[in-house]
Amino acid sequence: MNNEFINPFIESAINVIKTMAQIDATCGQPAIKTGHMAGGDVTGIISMIGEQAHVSLAITFSEPAILAITSSMLGENIEILDDTVADAVGEITNMVTGGSKRLLSEKGYKFDLASPSVIVGENHMIIHQLKAPVVILPFTTGAGDFFIELCSLSLDAD
Amino acid sequence: MNNEFINPFIESAINVIKTMAQIDATCGQPAIKTGHMAGGDVTGIISMIGEQAHVSLAITFSEPAILAITSSMLGENIEILDDTVADAVGEITNMVTGGSKRLLSEKGYKFDLASPSVIVGENHMIIHQLKAPVVILPFTTGAGDFFIELCSLSLDAD
Repeated sequence: MNNEFINPFIESAINVIKTMAQIDATCGQPAIKTGHMAGGDVTGIISMIGEQAHVSLAITFSEPAILAITSSMLGENIEILDDTVADAVGEITNMVTGGSKRLLSEKGYKFDLASPSVIVGENHMIIHQLKAPVVILPFTTGAGDFFIELCSLSLDAD
Repeated sequence: MNNEFINPFIESAINVIKTMAQIDATCGQPAIKTGHMAGGDVTGIISMIGEQAHVSLAITFSEPAILAITSSMLGENIEILDDTVADAVGEITNMVTGGSKRLLSEKGYKFDLASPSVIVGENHMIIHQLKAPVVILPFTTGAGDFFIELCSLSLDAD
């Protein structure tokens, strides 16, 4: 997976968190996922289906990070991982992939977006089933960390 | 969601568990999901994207059920929720939706299948983000229970 493909996801995630929650996020060095670490407490999962590639994407938040982001999005103090938080994670997942889709379309990649699912559960693990490496994008905010797991299978060989 | 749409998933799940694991599963009364109960220990999640409908499907297994199914599939004694089990859940998820897709195509529904993700974590909850009711299909086997969560948004109005 090259930077041309990865950067739209980084740009879109930073934009969405800034726009929705007025929180600055910065992205550290992308790395290949080994094992199933980086499991968060709340995760949005979505698929992007295109003729050139299939993408399986997860955005996984620590509890402090997503409580701060959701509180800021809604302008009220959210203290537990409830439906409101799950809906916020679903919305963030939609917006990050929607923004990435637009940026990728400028580079010639076309995708249909599925609807996300949100997983809530302490320290769950995510195992993508696309037969391709998973790139982890680590984001830091003043409120806590979150991670994007990006697994993309190129179909160019078809 | 009518029975014509639900039955292919029931038929396909029973076929897959029988064929892959030589285990008989029976399906109880479908019900609308309330709250986020029915969270399992291992879950396969997949999206089906079609012009007539979008589907978000989860198959969630209790630990005893999936250990028995995986052990039977592989002909060896699997005792912990490891990568082997996760891969088996991914394969089952692919096969159940693949079979359902074929059966639904005979009724005029066409779908593209995304790639599944597998979630491992004790008592995690799944919150589908499609704005439609979630139907729970409860399956019983001699080895334990599993559930299919089926959320389908009809696009007929478009």
